Amino acid sequence: MADTVFKHSLRVPYANIDKMGFVYYANYFVYFEMARAQMLRDVGLPYGELEDRGVMLPAVEAHCEYKKPARYDDLLTIQSVASLKGSRLRIDYEVVRDQELIATGYTEHVCMSSDGKVMKPIADLKKLINRCDNG
Amino acid sequence: MADTVFKHSLRVPYANIDKMGFVYYANYFVYFEMARAQMLRDVGLPYGELEDRGVMLPAVEAHCEYKKPARYDDLLTIQSVASLKGSRLRIDYEVVRDQELIATGYTEHVCMSSDGKVMKPIADLKKLINRCDNG
Amino acid sequence: MADTVFKHSLRVPYANIDKMGFVYYANYFVYFEMARAQMLRDVGLPYGELEDRGVMLPAVEAHCEYKKPARYDDLLTIQSVASLKGSRLRIDYEVVRDQELIATGYTEHVCMSSDGKVMKPIADLKKLINRCDNG
Amino acid sequence: MADTVFKHSLRVPYANIDKMGFVYYANYFVYFEMARAQMLRDVGLPYGELEDRGVMLPAVEAHCEYKKPARYDDLLTIQSVASLKGSRLRIDYEVVRDQELIATGYTEHVCMSSDGKVMKPIADLKKLINRCDNG
Repeated sequence: MADTVFKHSLRVPYANIDKMGFVYYANYFVYFEMARAQMLRDVGLPYGELEDRGVMLPAVEAHCEYKKPARYDDLLTIQSVASLKGSRLRIDYEVVRDQELIATGYTEHVCMSSDGKVMKPIADLKKLINRCDNG
Repeated sequence: MADTVFKHSLRVPYANIDKMGFVYYANYFVYFEMARAQMLRDVGLPYGELEDRGVMLPAVEAHCEYKKPARYDDLLTIQSVASLKGSRLRIDYEVVRDQELIATGYTEHVCMSSDGKVMKPIADLKKLINRCDNG
Repeated sequence: MADTVFKHSLRVPYANIDKMGFVYYANYFVYFEMARAQMLRDVGLPYGELEDRGVMLPAVEAHCEYKKPARYDDLLTIQSVASLKGSRLRIDYEVVRDQELIATGYTEHVCMSSDGKVMKPIADLKKLINRCDNG
Repeated sequence: MADTVFKHSLRVPYANIDKMGFVYYANYFVYFEMARAQMLRDVGLPYGELEDRGVMLPAVEAHCEYKKPARYDDLLTIQSVASLKGSRLRIDYEVVRDQELIATGYTEHVCMSSDGKVMKPIADLKKLINRCDNG
């Protein structure tokens, strides 16, 4: 019943910090991508291999809500869960520092062939979704 | 009746392009920030001056929908409109290449004092909102 | 006798500023790339077209010296000059704010075919070099 | 006799890859910064604490030579060694993938007080240098 939650941790580099001393807001989407890549690797479906097979997963929607600022050198954990929403792959993220919720967000992706055509979700993505459903 | 739409143009650098040949999705939020800064400058309220006066506008929410890929060296125009949503400043963006809609999105911001407290929207922001309402 | 100097201007976005309030040091290399692209465009040789013809110009060396900090919203001008150094294309940059020198640097590039082989500098690059020599 | 070499590993995110499929050249300087931060942390001198004490280490020079391209999802290790060069802190880096050398570089830094004055290297940096000298 409970979803399988994938986890990825990272330490915030100075490059990501703005003048306020906070992680600049666009960088959360890079963290989401890192978490997404780790998730795919964890189910034996590294994104690089998908691209080699001619399947790309461009983002068609991205969203983030910022709850607390993250700062330089913070150790952040991104928790992610995948689901299918029609023909879109949706991934929900929570960014956590210790027990504290820093940000939440999601991204939605379509499967695209290397000549730029939108495809049905490939069967292999089911692996990921199934692991999330049956966690 | 029609809203005042602020415009900002930029040319996509190679740094922003991913392996698919598209603008990497997180970069749109940097483009939104550039457009936002230009908008504030256009109403005589440069963000740097706001910060010098101890007022910051951190993002509390950010959203983007990707319609068409943008590519290296594209000349993109970001059109933006500001409004108030309770105590939040909301800005809506459209990213356009020639007549073609590339992406839409919005960001929401609160006014924060330099010691990190959320404040009511400062009076000066009304300038911006009024220009958008009465365009 | 004097070299032709190409100029490119940009306004520093908030995304590029670090916690010290300065442009984060790696971003200067992005500014160099923007200046380089503008230079190629100015001599009728846009980098995108080079890539379409199967010629890439990966950097093999990059260098920057930081003289004065640049800050948010600064209007920077990057002045660049191209030369050939053996089979390498070398570009020298000066980053200037008003009359003040902010940084200097250079990058060196080789011509690479789309299958990853290093090639001799293509004839078209001579256009660029000649304009720099005979400025 | 042998220097103490500090090591930091990272996996290349999609965000860092350009259209050629290579790590975009400016990103190496971000990797250098991550390695530098890890090095300072390893000797009990986290950079965040330095800044809290009013000591900053802005880069005054940065250099990189690119030997082989790094690609998406590569696991890179950055090896770094610190030394003093007059009043400058110099750090040399090697970026390695498996046994293969991908890039080499260095950065030079001065100690700066929070009001922007260049200072003599703080005594605590000796810890780092000594560990490098007596490895």
